[in-house]
Amino acid sequence: MATSVAEPQTHSVRDWLYRQLEPRARVGQGLSPLNWALGLLILVVVTLSILETEPAIARGHERFFDDFEFAAGLIFLVEYCARLWVEVENPRYAGARFPRLRYALTPIAIIDLVAILPALFAFGGAPSLVLRFFRVLRMLRLAKLGRTSRAWEHIRDAMYERRFEFALILTMVGVVVLISGSLLYWAEADVQPDKFGSIPRALWWSVITLTTVGYGDATPVTTIGKILGGIMALCGVMFIALPTGLFAASFTEAMQRHREHCDREEGPDA
Amino acid sequence: MATSVAEPQTHSVRDWLYRQLEPRARVGQGLSPLNWALGLLILVVVTLSILETEPAIARGHERFFDDFEFAAGLIFLVEYCARLWVEVENPRYAGARFPRLRYALTPIAIIDLVAILPALFAFGGAPSLVLRFFRVLRMLRLAKLGRTSRAWEHIRDAMYERRFEFALILTMVGVVVLISGSLLYWAEADVQPDKFGSIPRALWWSVITLTTVGYGDATPVTTIGKILGGIMALCGVMFIALPTGLFAASFTEAMQRHREHCDREEGPDA
Amino acid sequence: MATSVAEPQTHSVRDWLYRQLEPRARVGQGLSPLNWALGLLILVVVTLSILETEPAIARGHERFFDDFEFAAGLIFLVEYCARLWVEVENPRYAGARFPRLRYALTPIAIIDLVAILPALFAFGGAPSLVLRFFRVLRMLRLAKLGRTSRAWEHIRDAMYERRFEFALILTMVGVVVLISGSLLYWAEADVQPDKFGSIPRALWWSVITLTTVGYGDATPVTTIGKILGGIMALCGVMFIALPTGLFAASFTEAMQRHREHCDREEGPDA
Amino acid sequence: MATSVAEPQTHSVRDWLYRQLEPRARVGQGLSPLNWALGLLILVVVTLSILETEPAIARGHERFFDDFEFAAGLIFLVEYCARLWVEVENPRYAGARFPRLRYALTPIAIIDLVAILPALFAFGGAPSLVLRFFRVLRMLRLAKLGRTSRAWEHIRDAMYERRFEFALILTMVGVVVLISGSLLYWAEADVQPDKFGSIPRALWWSVITLTTVGYGDATPVTTIGKILGGIMALCGVMFIALPTGLFAASFTEAMQRHREHCDREEGPDA
Repeated sequence: MATSVAEPQTHSVRDWLYRQLEPRARVGQGLSPLNWALGLLILVVVTLSILETEPAIARGHERFFDDFEFAAGLIFLVEYCARLWVEVENPRYAGARFPRLRYALTPIAIIDLVAILPALFAFGGAPSLVLRFFRVLRMLRLAKLGRTSRAWEHIRDAMYERRFEFALILTMVGVVVLISGSLLYWAEADVQPDKFGSIPRALWWSVITLTTVGYGDATPVTTIGKILGGIMALCGVMFIALPTGLFAASFTEAMQRHREHCDREEGPDA
Repeated sequence: MATSVAEPQTHSVRDWLYRQLEPRARVGQGLSPLNWALGLLILVVVTLSILETEPAIARGHERFFDDFEFAAGLIFLVEYCARLWVEVENPRYAGARFPRLRYALTPIAIIDLVAILPALFAFGGAPSLVLRFFRVLRMLRLAKLGRTSRAWEHIRDAMYERRFEFALILTMVGVVVLISGSLLYWAEADVQPDKFGSIPRALWWSVITLTTVGYGDATPVTTIGKILGGIMALCGVMFIALPTGLFAASFTEAMQRHREHCDREEGPDA
Repeated sequence: MATSVAEPQTHSVRDWLYRQLEPRARVGQGLSPLNWALGLLILVVVTLSILETEPAIARGHERFFDDFEFAAGLIFLVEYCARLWVEVENPRYAGARFPRLRYALTPIAIIDLVAILPALFAFGGAPSLVLRFFRVLRMLRLAKLGRTSRAWEHIRDAMYERRFEFALILTMVGVVVLISGSLLYWAEADVQPDKFGSIPRALWWSVITLTTVGYGDATPVTTIGKILGGIMALCGVMFIALPTGLFAASFTEAMQRHREHCDREEGPDA
Repeated sequence: MATSVAEPQTHSVRDWLYRQLEPRARVGQGLSPLNWALGLLILVVVTLSILETEPAIARGHERFFDDFEFAAGLIFLVEYCARLWVEVENPRYAGARFPRLRYALTPIAIIDLVAILPALFAFGGAPSLVLRFFRVLRMLRLAKLGRTSRAWEHIRDAMYERRFEFALILTMVGVVVLISGSLLYWAEADVQPDKFGSIPRALWWSVITLTTVGYGDATPVTTIGKILGGIMALCGVMFIALPTGLFAASFTEAMQRHREHCDREEGPDA
């Protein structure tokens, strides 16, 4: 504590900004005022980005939306540069070379940059598919909200711990989707060639049925197809039951471990 | 105890009525006879309010429905005033100024009043949208049923304890709904402008798919849209799995805590 | 054991038949040979009752189906009478008056009789609605399968233990279904009077959405209706999550109790 | 160890190949290089088999797909013969007669052979239904992926342990499906004879509703049919809740047992 008295002024500003921007470095509870403001700005910008795409709302206000978009892009660019600047304070990179470059290559920093850049350039003559693509890219700013929360890490860790079971269930889902799609292709290809005429086409039905979404745009019409489809619908219930059961067990275990940990700290006379 | 002997007669009547109306103040098990009667009346009135909106049932009986509505409104108004009167007995407001005003400003009392008033006024010349709005307001009486049950508080407390996890899951749901809607807008806007022509329009598809409802009024038709839609349908299963798993873990923990509590009371030789 | 030597022959036959018919009285494991045969006959008769209703299958074989139905009805009538006869052996009715009448008035015996009788009479001139009703009644024979299994009782007991929580969830479901139906009636009645023109009509949409079935025969088309509908679809996920979480917790608790019971029996050195 | 010095060279090769092919016999962690290569080949072949059925992709490349199919079939045939050859090393068949014949009659070996054979023969003149059937058979190769994973056995064992409960739930599902189909047949047969004209036809609606898939190709239109249908939709939620709750409890129990096992091994001072 006393040693920091001798540190130059620059360090203090950078250190203060680092603790403002990085939730893990925050001393008090909750979010820092700066992160609150940035989170709010993200929500406003994303809402406007969404409304901008609706002609019934945006017509006549294109100028306002464009200017706001550009201004928000500048603010996020300043934030990005500030994060680069303060990253040398991060203990994770303590002693490492090029801490700013290392940070710039983390996935979250790359997503940051990709979400900022489209707002700063005009794409006047671009075809609508490209224009829409850059608009969708801006939605990536929502991912920045995740950084403001420590709770994301807990859920990520809980899923990481059970990653083999989830990978297994995902593989099972894939195999059952493929086999059920193939069976319906076999049963329905002659009657509905546009919907079940090939396995890739039948896979659309297969995914929509096994997830119990059931749009109804592709349904079996032959007797054998309906029998197979009914069995697949019942399998779909299992597909919801397996990952749900696994999540439930993971959460239960995590809560129990937390409770036992608390009991132990309280002592044996609890 | 002995001090209450000197209390005036009014207190006894008010105290008796308070214990009749407030489930928490009830000495015996179950509901008081008065709350039973009020609960039954709510169910009858709500059922009639529902049937009244169906022309095939109400035609020719408008007078009966209107009169019944008005009579029930009067009874509920008397109940509301009685609750105001007895609220000074509530230990929660012991020593506080204006206990009746404090009660009148609680959410449940405001809902009460809002649900009563429309029944007492005629809206002859009002447009159908306003008329229907007041009819729907009467449904709020169902919320009064909640007051008659202590079990509501348990479930509310259990959810309150895990409010951060539920808020996190709700945020995740929101982010995934926005991103999936944006992606489908990118893929399908040219082919189906009326259903995916803007992100707000695509959000309808997004919510209906991720909750696995799947009406089928908006479905992707392009290959890339179907691939993205299939991935979103699989994410939808996760959306059901996460809150379900969390509920399961919360309930399991609550039951275990209750059981351990019972075991401890029975002593170590259980 | 030795005392039974003096018992008359009738008792032995009745006692043997009682142990054959009543699963709880069975000494060995699994089902008795007689119950196996009866269970199999139920499955065959139910399958034929189902196929009989399909003209593409039944045409030209009406005689065969009718004769089989009649023969099976006779066998089930003999079984019913046999059960009445042996019921005096049931320890539940030991010392009670009219044990056979008491048995005949139990729900399972009444269902038995109701499912048998329609098979023994011809309904030549009856209208199709009545004819179909008696055909559906025969399906009740499936309920007899439940009697052959002791496991049904376990699941029934587990649900009975949590009956208050399930009743609470059912009430919540009912309230949310009513309120969401009312809101959609308010938003959509002018635009789609045939589907949302009254609250009873809107309730069909409400139930189908909140259970995430989502047929798509009634969907909101106005903006406000779609916003409300989207919120209701998200509530629907909660409706699946709550009872599922409760079942999961109940099953987990039952398994743990069973395991602790086993541990205790094994002794502390397990 | 020292005794194996005297063994002939053949044994070493067969033993090495056995440990390469059989995951349970593997000394190191993860999959053997040979099984990695075979798993990858299966994925490639299955992907091509799927794409081959889509005319928009396969047109003009039929020769390539056929040749690749044939080559992959030869490789899998060699693998099959190799597995037969090394199976004498399997300790499961130690001392048994005809270990290779015993292996060849296991379900996994039969599936293997059935999936290989169609690729090696041409079916030029066969009708499209037969052709498609053999194409779908090739999907069975995916089942071979299961052999490369030890985790499948864990999930299989967990389900096997609770097989009575799952059988009971499956029976309940069957009974409710039959009864709800019969009721809708009773209510809707006159109005929609093509969809509810017989119980087998109504069962399609019944399965699709109770699994909450809800295509919307068959929906009740009468008032009584809608009331019954709404109740069935609510039952459908129970159908998802019951197996999910059971899975959750099974997984929770398995994790707890595993944890207690670990605690015990660490000793009481953990």
